[in-house]
Amino acid sequence: MNAPTPAQHLIPQVAQREVPQVLLDALSERFGNQFSAAMAVREQHGRDESSYSVPPPAAVVFAQSTQDVADAVKLAARYKVPVIPFGVGSSLEGHLLAVQGGISLDVGRMNQVLSINADDLTVTVQPGVTRTQLNAAVKSTGLFFPIDPGADATIGGMSATRASGTNAVRYGTMRENVLALEVVTAQGEIIRTGTRAKKSAAGYDLTRLMVGSEGTLGVITEITVKLYPLPEAVMAATCSFSTLADAVNATIQIIQMGVPIARCELLDGNTIRIVNAHSKLSLREGAMLLFEFHGSPAGVKEQVETVQSITDEFGGAAFEWAETPEERTRLWTARHNAYFAGVQSVPGCKAITTDTCVPISNLADALLDSVTEAQEAGLPYFLVGHVGDGNFHVGYLIDPNKPEERVLAEKLNSQLVERALKLGGTCTGEHGVGLHKMEFLRTETGDGAVNMMRTIKRALDPDNIMNPGKIFLL
Amino acid sequence: MNAPTPAQHLIPQVAQREVPQVLLDALSERFGNQFSAAMAVREQHGRDESSYSVPPPAAVVFAQSTQDVADAVKLAARYKVPVIPFGVGSSLEGHLLAVQGGISLDVGRMNQVLSINADDLTVTVQPGVTRTQLNAAVKSTGLFFPIDPGADATIGGMSATRASGTNAVRYGTMRENVLALEVVTAQGEIIRTGTRAKKSAAGYDLTRLMVGSEGTLGVITEITVKLYPLPEAVMAATCSFSTLADAVNATIQIIQMGVPIARCELLDGNTIRIVNAHSKLSLREGAMLLFEFHGSPAGVKEQVETVQSITDEFGGAAFEWAETPEERTRLWTARHNAYFAGVQSVPGCKAITTDTCVPISNLADALLDSVTEAQEAGLPYFLVGHVGDGNFHVGYLIDPNKPEERVLAEKLNSQLVERALKLGGTCTGEHGVGLHKMEFLRTETGDGAVNMMRTIKRALDPDNIMNPGKIFLL
Repeated sequence: MNAPTPAQHLIPQVAQREVPQVLLDALSERFGNQFSAAMAVREQHGRDESSYSVPPPAAVVFAQSTQDVADAVKLAARYKVPVIPFGVGSSLEGHLLAVQGGISLDVGRMNQVLSINADDLTVTVQPGVTRTQLNAAVKSTGLFFPIDPGADATIGGMSATRASGTNAVRYGTMRENVLALEVVTAQGEIIRTGTRAKKSAAGYDLTRLMVGSEGTLGVITEITVKLYPLPEAVMAATCSFSTLADAVNATIQIIQMGVPIARCELLDGNTIRIVNAHSKLSLREGAMLLFEFHGSPAGVKEQVETVQSITDEFGGAAFEWAETPEERTRLWTARHNAYFAGVQSVPGCKAITTDTCVPISNLADALLDSVTEAQEAGLPYFLVGHVGDGNFHVGYLIDPNKPEERVLAEKLNSQLVERALKLGGTCTGEHGVGLHKMEFLRTETGDGAVNMMRTIKRALDPDNIMNPGKIFLL
Repeated sequence: MNAPTPAQHLIPQVAQREVPQVLLDALSERFGNQFSAAMAVREQHGRDESSYSVPPPAAVVFAQSTQDVADAVKLAARYKVPVIPFGVGSSLEGHLLAVQGGISLDVGRMNQVLSINADDLTVTVQPGVTRTQLNAAVKSTGLFFPIDPGADATIGGMSATRASGTNAVRYGTMRENVLALEVVTAQGEIIRTGTRAKKSAAGYDLTRLMVGSEGTLGVITEITVKLYPLPEAVMAATCSFSTLADAVNATIQIIQMGVPIARCELLDGNTIRIVNAHSKLSLREGAMLLFEFHGSPAGVKEQVETVQSITDEFGGAAFEWAETPEERTRLWTARHNAYFAGVQSVPGCKAITTDTCVPISNLADALLDSVTEAQEAGLPYFLVGHVGDGNFHVGYLIDPNKPEERVLAEKLNSQLVERALKLGGTCTGEHGVGLHKMEFLRTETGDGAVNMMRTIKRALDPDNIMNPGKIFLL
């Protein structure tokens, strides 16, 4: 018996489940050219942005409608075969990997914006609509959808992982912004979990149970989300600090003062170097906060004044303004690309990414020691943070051919997560649990809560066919 | 066999379950003078603000700690006896009624504010803390807790019913403001559902599954909620309109413009009369919007200007300002007392209260026809609305000794709810389902979603002991 490869050693070893030929034949017959068992297609659907290597799914179904999803799930259910929903493949924690075998259910072609209700500040979309597509579709209404994970993820995938991003400090996460869902259950039934009303006390909050369930309770086939009026005034600026501690402490004070800041992002000097090189920018090297202010002209002016007086107090340099929409876009594109810039900064590397979130008063304690540890370990790394939310990511860049680097990175990750949990935080602010954080979830929430999750999973999906082996093992 | 009384005819007729003497003895032994089977105590715990009359619970346990709750639930579970959590008894939909018999578990003595984390804008409390007690406890920090149902409800009860109130238009409901819970499960286990981190993607959102579950999945024994900085500037004003339609249409436009208004409440002329009489006020009789603006001085000024220009457009009278904190308190106390003022306006009456919430663009269609129907029916009524959220309440005042009045009120309620559902709304914005809205819930969400709720309930509470007979029947 071979030892597990370095890539595998953190994945719980559960047997692949059989995908009978009769199911593949039935899917092929039902779906025609929306079905593929070609190796290239399977491999493309058998990986995400995580560092794991797992055999691909046995086949891929390209759903074009809710009925397609329901039919595919019903067929898979008949043979108790796993179904793994797939959007664009931008998950970070192994959510899309066929660890127990099965079928990938690609909803990327379900990419219609179904109804824009500008008067109600809501829009209903199919799950394959991406966030940039959504914003393009609603642009003429004067509204926008703020949630922006780095990748151009699908709204379905973002719902499934409870995603957020840079604007969450002001506008909340998918948890706060999804109003209602259509879901195909593990039995292939189509249900609706809410209405377009802004609030409701009508029974269990199935919407929020599904948001963040990582495909383990059903397939999201329609999503109604909130929209927001484009702010009258938008200003973006960067501010450099002599030390990372000053940048973090300035952030803490900005949040404690209740400034309704739209974005408050942190990069350290090392990451600024990487971003400058990748995006051909000349941001000042050193710990930097990137801000965006939304509001009326007077409101933005007030926010800027408050934030400037706080950054002054912590020795921040003068704000450098991104004045025009083009400059702002360039700045935030560079920020959104920081993850990819980091990964590309070391040719051939893989990133082991962390994602803790702590109460804001503990941000300095959580972040500074973690960065020091990364530096002392000598692994290349990058640091980006939605620090206004107390959320940050360290990416450790490892040579996938050097097992000792992975072991070191995972050790650093464990130290970082354990520190965050001791400080009242969570093991994942926005990426989800996937394969990577099952043990951390148990530490964070305790056996009682994980057992309650497992009980719900068993009740709703007794044959464990919906994306099995993620979040927890049954 | 007697016909059901008018009060009973809407309650699903399910047999009372036996409460064996051996359980009462065991509870008495474990809880001593924290246990009571006195009729007066049972009766006080056997009613709420709904209009139903149901036999009281067999006994009451006054929990003083989480361990007390766990022990009481474990004892009840051993004999498969229902447990009904009780706060202050201010529910409106029959949540507290022992429709299947059982034990009332009063958590009102668990009224400690456990930790105020002002630097993180969070506070952790026991479930019996009321909203005014909470705000008194955090007052010195310069923070406040905005959620304000009319009654001085407990934070536990507000969590259990997913409550909101006048500030929800700006600050959200309990759904958005509860960060984490401690819960005693139907098995008597103590679990935690989250951390104090502002956001998290760590597994199923058990916090939001419990929020709004109306005591049917467990007993909430600890709650961590968000706090907000007291706004630098606060202004409150009233504005009268010639017609209800003008007031509603002004509201719609205020919300569509994205004004971050803190409160936007509607009363009709009939209700203003009732409130004036009850609270010794002299508000101008006629449809009226009550506003509150929070922000910086400049921000409040901007909001006021925008709202004034909108109300002008709809023929609103000049704003009448509540300038001082005392005047504001008087105004909002009168608003919060509107429900009680309504009920007291007809001696001996009972109120049949509605609670729909619709997408804002459909508010006029939902509200105006419902008020016309109430007027044409000739029943005394009152109308209050958190209209900024699309949420409003009509209270039909009936003589409980005249069955035909109850039938008429329920018919009006049905028409109102069905209209709201057709307009994309919900049957309950903030009161919950309780006994009163089971059928409406099914219409709203469909059998699929209700069946999913029932499946979850059966999995977490297989003996159906946690507040059985509410939300749905198993």
